[in-house]
Amino acid sequence: MTAIGASQAGNNLDPWYHHYAERAAALRASEVRALFAVASRPEVVSLAGGMPYVAALPQDLVMNALENVMRKQGPVALQYGSGQGVPAFREQILEVMALEGIRANADDVVVTTGSQHALELVSKLFLDPGDVVLSEGPSYVTAMVIFKSYQADVDHVPMDENGMIPEALREHIARLKAAGRTIKFLYTIPSFHNPAGVTLSWARRLEILEIARQNQILVLEDNPYGLLYFDQKAPDAMRSVERDGVVYLGTFSKTLAPGFRVGWALAPHAIREKLVLANEAAILSPSSFSQLVISEYLSTADWKGQINTFRGVYRERKEAMLSALTEYLPDLTWTNPNGGFYVWLSLPDTLDSKAMLPRAVKELVAYTPGTAFFADGQGRQNIRLSFCYPTPEHIRLGIRRLATVIRDELELLDTFAGTGSLSPAHDGRRFGAPPPDIN
Amino acid sequence: MTAIGASQAGNNLDPWYHHYAERAAALRASEVRALFAVASRPEVVSLAGGMPYVAALPQDLVMNALENVMRKQGPVALQYGSGQGVPAFREQILEVMALEGIRANADDVVVTTGSQHALELVSKLFLDPGDVVLSEGPSYVTAMVIFKSYQADVDHVPMDENGMIPEALREHIARLKAAGRTIKFLYTIPSFHNPAGVTLSWARRLEILEIARQNQILVLEDNPYGLLYFDQKAPDAMRSVERDGVVYLGTFSKTLAPGFRVGWALAPHAIREKLVLANEAAILSPSSFSQLVISEYLSTADWKGQINTFRGVYRERKEAMLSALTEYLPDLTWTNPNGGFYVWLSLPDTLDSKAMLPRAVKELVAYTPGTAFFADGQGRQNIRLSFCYPTPEHIRLGIRRLATVIRDELELLDTFAGTGSLSPAHDGRRFGAPPPDIN
Repeated sequence: MTAIGASQAGNNLDPWYHHYAERAAALRASEVRALFAVASRPEVVSLAGGMPYVAALPQDLVMNALENVMRKQGPVALQYGSGQGVPAFREQILEVMALEGIRANADDVVVTTGSQHALELVSKLFLDPGDVVLSEGPSYVTAMVIFKSYQADVDHVPMDENGMIPEALREHIARLKAAGRTIKFLYTIPSFHNPAGVTLSWARRLEILEIARQNQILVLEDNPYGLLYFDQKAPDAMRSVERDGVVYLGTFSKTLAPGFRVGWALAPHAIREKLVLANEAAILSPSSFSQLVISEYLSTADWKGQINTFRGVYRERKEAMLSALTEYLPDLTWTNPNGGFYVWLSLPDTLDSKAMLPRAVKELVAYTPGTAFFADGQGRQNIRLSFCYPTPEHIRLGIRRLATVIRDELELLDTFAGTGSLSPAHDGRRFGAPPPDIN
Repeated sequence: MTAIGASQAGNNLDPWYHHYAERAAALRASEVRALFAVASRPEVVSLAGGMPYVAALPQDLVMNALENVMRKQGPVALQYGSGQGVPAFREQILEVMALEGIRANADDVVVTTGSQHALELVSKLFLDPGDVVLSEGPSYVTAMVIFKSYQADVDHVPMDENGMIPEALREHIARLKAAGRTIKFLYTIPSFHNPAGVTLSWARRLEILEIARQNQILVLEDNPYGLLYFDQKAPDAMRSVERDGVVYLGTFSKTLAPGFRVGWALAPHAIREKLVLANEAAILSPSSFSQLVISEYLSTADWKGQINTFRGVYRERKEAMLSALTEYLPDLTWTNPNGGFYVWLSLPDTLDSKAMLPRAVKELVAYTPGTAFFADGQGRQNIRLSFCYPTPEHIRLGIRRLATVIRDELELLDTFAGTGSLSPAHDGRRFGAPPPDIN
């Protein structure tokens, strides 16, 4: 009653309520948003966010780049630029992508306002209402928000510890086609997946590309974390072996700093042309200032050494998280990422990660419930744990607090219903039950 | 035949041609795009672009801000921020808007990637296919590109030297309503209009707001040039007297520098909430770095004095342009802007500004043909002349070259058909014939 009343009041208070586009209905505030505001208090250990640890970037490297840019090309940095991005900078982006096996032409690169905006632009170009986007289940939250904002449906393909399962992908495509649905693209994060923490094997990359080719499905390869591996490199990018069927997305948010909002898309030529037009319509041109600063940084700083520094920071934090999980929650299961920012934890199946979150925040630890990463309500037995931002000590503290919350929950359940158990919900092979049939 | 063949070849070369969303059809390369690439050669005097003269901004003001930001809050500047923008910066934006009579709450401000992105976000929130956007005729090119990219139709309301004509607005609304069309908003640039160079009088601002109120039409007030007046201030913003019915767009691109890509929207509360969600979906958060640099600049530099400097630069250039027009093209008519970047020139009605452009570029002067500023093919007898970027000397040279091109064209016409005449196409009261009925 209260919720309905509040919602109605909200509508009545908005004189423009009936003027919004249909797609605006998909833009709703996250249910955990208010809680995250609370979770940003300093006494809360947040294992929820995805903020890179920019303090590991020596500020004089940035300051040098800023000074050089202003001295050498200030008026250009302060001016509008081309909608596609600075040509010399696009050449440097090729060097970054070459580290993951990609050979390309700078003419096929479009600089975007973070890779997030590349996702938005590709979605605006391709998605009609009722279209389907295939993605891993779980998948990146804000990608799904975009897909839904263009009134597309997200169909989750199950994953295991080697990433998306090709046979499941075949089944999903067949079922969607039989239902007369239009699949516009396959969205995937093959390396150090957000939120699952797993990596698509090389053999599966080839197999999934082949499936996409057979079914004429465009692949949208989102690779923010690929260079942030721990012990061994991720397999080469899918784009390294398939040029015409892949739109590849990259970013400087994780290998340098997100504050500049610079990412890019590498796209087949005809799609690239349309992406530039969409980029110009949306923002006229990406920030000249940000592009030139990063270009200068890439020219003068040891950027590969800096990525190594980040790798070391995140490796240490991942190890702290896994060792704390082993110590405090030995009966549960979790993924062991070889790079990136995230561990995916499976809870006992009597628990609900979303319902438990307020109690966790009360115990001064925050996480993201698994439901955030599914478009269809799955994920209640999962938690995404981020190890990118907090120190190893805080990670240990956070996991200890989380263990207390989980044990208290289970004891409570046990007291009232005798259902408390520390065995995880799933067998660990797949990260969720197959989604219900598309209706 | 050639054009059709080329188009088909293009399609066949794009394996994804049949996969694009319907809205992507609106994203076409401008017909004058290739020509503008030629026009960017240094020997061409370009009166075509809208680039502010950033060289009039002392670089040490920017460098000081950069240094202070890195010293005082480097890790914050390099990090992700809130989707709405930095709170202290939004407070400072209130001070900028106060100069045009706006009193508001920082909670209703959303920082965007230039005001262009605010236009995109508002359009995404409100426009369903088949909706109508009312705008001045002529209107800002890239606003119309956005509206059309969301499959809305643009209906042009005629203007005269005092801006949009209220009686015409009433007629258009009545006709559209009678035809069962849904009008989603009225897009207007009331001060120093792009491209017309005119300013909506205070009386008309009130009258148009009243018409919008009566018809429950949201007003989208785009005000990039308001503070760049020459002899007298523009009337206060429409938002200064109407809070619930106006979304106001502002930018630092013209009063500081476009290279940072920072603008904002001030919106009624419920719309603001949705704008933040749309902003987060599109780019996660606006650049922390850019926001903090501008915030620091506003705190430490004499930013009002700097706007005065810009005013002086543009006033001198406008005067150079008008005096050159009087000298070299005394028989034509043009608008006399009291601020902003643009003069709107009317040609003799035997000339076609779009057809004439290649010959102008050959004579080393570039302009934007009037057709670019109409959604419906009007504007062939008009030219937008920009005085913002070239020096006064180059402006004189450019107008002299333009006069040669126009006289040559008229002589040619006279030789072959006896139709050459230097009388302008229109009586100067309205900037184009009323658009055809909406079908």
